[in-house]
Amino acid sequence: MPHAFLLHLTPQTKAAPQRYLSKYAHGFFYHVLAQIDAELSARVHALKRNPFTLWAKAHKDGSVYLRVTTLDDALFQPLIRTVLAESLVGMSLGQDSYQVARVLATPEGHRDAGFTGWDDLLAVGPTGQLDLTFLTPTVFTTSKPDGAKAHYTPLPIPRLMMQSLLSSFQHYSPAPYSEPELLELERDFVQQLIVTRHEVRTQPVVAGKVAFTGFVGRSQMRYQGRSQLVAQALARLGCYAFYAGLGAKTSFGMGQVRVRL
Amino acid sequence: MPHAFLLHLTPQTKAAPQRYLSKYAHGFFYHVLAQIDAELSARVHALKRNPFTLWAKAHKDGSVYLRVTTLDDALFQPLIRTVLAESLVGMSLGQDSYQVARVLATPEGHRDAGFTGWDDLLAVGPTGQLDLTFLTPTVFTTSKPDGAKAHYTPLPIPRLMMQSLLSSFQHYSPAPYSEPELLELERDFVQQLIVTRHEVRTQPVVAGKVAFTGFVGRSQMRYQGRSQLVAQALARLGCYAFYAGLGAKTSFGMGQVRVRL
Repeated sequence: MPHAFLLHLTPQTKAAPQRYLSKYAHGFFYHVLAQIDAELSARVHALKRNPFTLWAKAHKDGSVYLRVTTLDDALFQPLIRTVLAESLVGMSLGQDSYQVARVLATPEGHRDAGFTGWDDLLAVGPTGQLDLTFLTPTVFTTSKPDGAKAHYTPLPIPRLMMQSLLSSFQHYSPAPYSEPELLELERDFVQQLIVTRHEVRTQPVVAGKVAFTGFVGRSQMRYQGRSQLVAQALARLGCYAFYAGLGAKTSFGMGQVRVRL
Repeated sequence: MPHAFLLHLTPQTKAAPQRYLSKYAHGFFYHVLAQIDAELSARVHALKRNPFTLWAKAHKDGSVYLRVTTLDDALFQPLIRTVLAESLVGMSLGQDSYQVARVLATPEGHRDAGFTGWDDLLAVGPTGQLDLTFLTPTVFTTSKPDGAKAHYTPLPIPRLMMQSLLSSFQHYSPAPYSEPELLELERDFVQQLIVTRHEVRTQPVVAGKVAFTGFVGRSQMRYQGRSQLVAQALARLGCYAFYAGLGAKTSFGMGQVRVRL
């Protein structure tokens, strides 16, 4: 089942501002993976699609909130266990050493934490509307017809949002959509989803060491069609978005969202 | 040549707030046209594409600024002449009677007024970037594959913006693009224009008597290709946008923009 949890990391010494925080968080995460199992770390690193998202946010007091979501069912338990064990000796983000002061794994602990069983996620009722709040810069990669250079689109275009979620869902869900279902979904994502309201603006971000321009803000979309399959997919993918994030570089803090059905 | 001018209308009596101001402005405009020539008014009314845009903005003091742009070369002179002549007897917007206090027809008089000769517009140098400020709610009509219901897209998608401008330009320019040029333009509008920065939000609006949701704000796009034809079209259509407006219902105040190349 998809999980989202936050690690509150406090510096063991006076920490320097972290210019490449998202890159260091990435390194931290793979370090933890390597503690679980060196082979696991190498395997996850080699995957084309990350089974996790990472968002590191520095606070004024020098502490860091690291939001981790896991999409692969096998990842959460060993991750938490290892983080807690490692925490005692301290872990590094860039050049500074941190301790895990708290782990927040439920919505009661933090609004951006929680978990949803696949059964619950798959059983969610249909919806005609999705309301997304983009907490961190979000951008969609759209390959060009000639396949040469990637296009980055920093706009809440419903088709791009849903295609991004669907592609991840198909990879991790125990009950992915069938080919005929996919055809129906993709057709309606293009033809029947409209933006009803939004308030967005671009924001530059460094993901890893690369500069991107994503958008933050809020966007609401409505489904104008009549297919129950699509209306349910909207709800499922909406729930899933909280864990999977949207668009590019979700393992470097981009595309993190809150969702209201 | 395309013109943009503002009529500052002051009420002759204490005016009531105008709920359907854009509709009344529309009526006012056709009334003026009918004074020039009843046949002209009927002919313009019957056109599928309006050779003008209209934007009426009420001020707190009860006066109204009416921005009029004309795309058809034959429209400007008789329009101004008739407005000034009619002004002496007063003209109605809805139930109230107004006088034309001022006509602002140059950028010195008002930043949203001005004119550009077709020769100058066609001779403008190429640009790699367009910066548009959407003063009034803007929405693009995108017909669906089945042709049934219209889609309205309230987002600054470069392809939709340029296609809207190009289609109007082709209609009014004395030197429209040829078929092979159009193919090149349309290909690059889809593949080579990217949004580099934006800050936009939706805003509801009543255009005529129909409610729409458009977006206002600012959006910057960049051309990534190498075609001189496209880079020049970007500049021409950018200049033209100031007069033509973008998207749907420009004769009811929507899609009014300021442009920076």
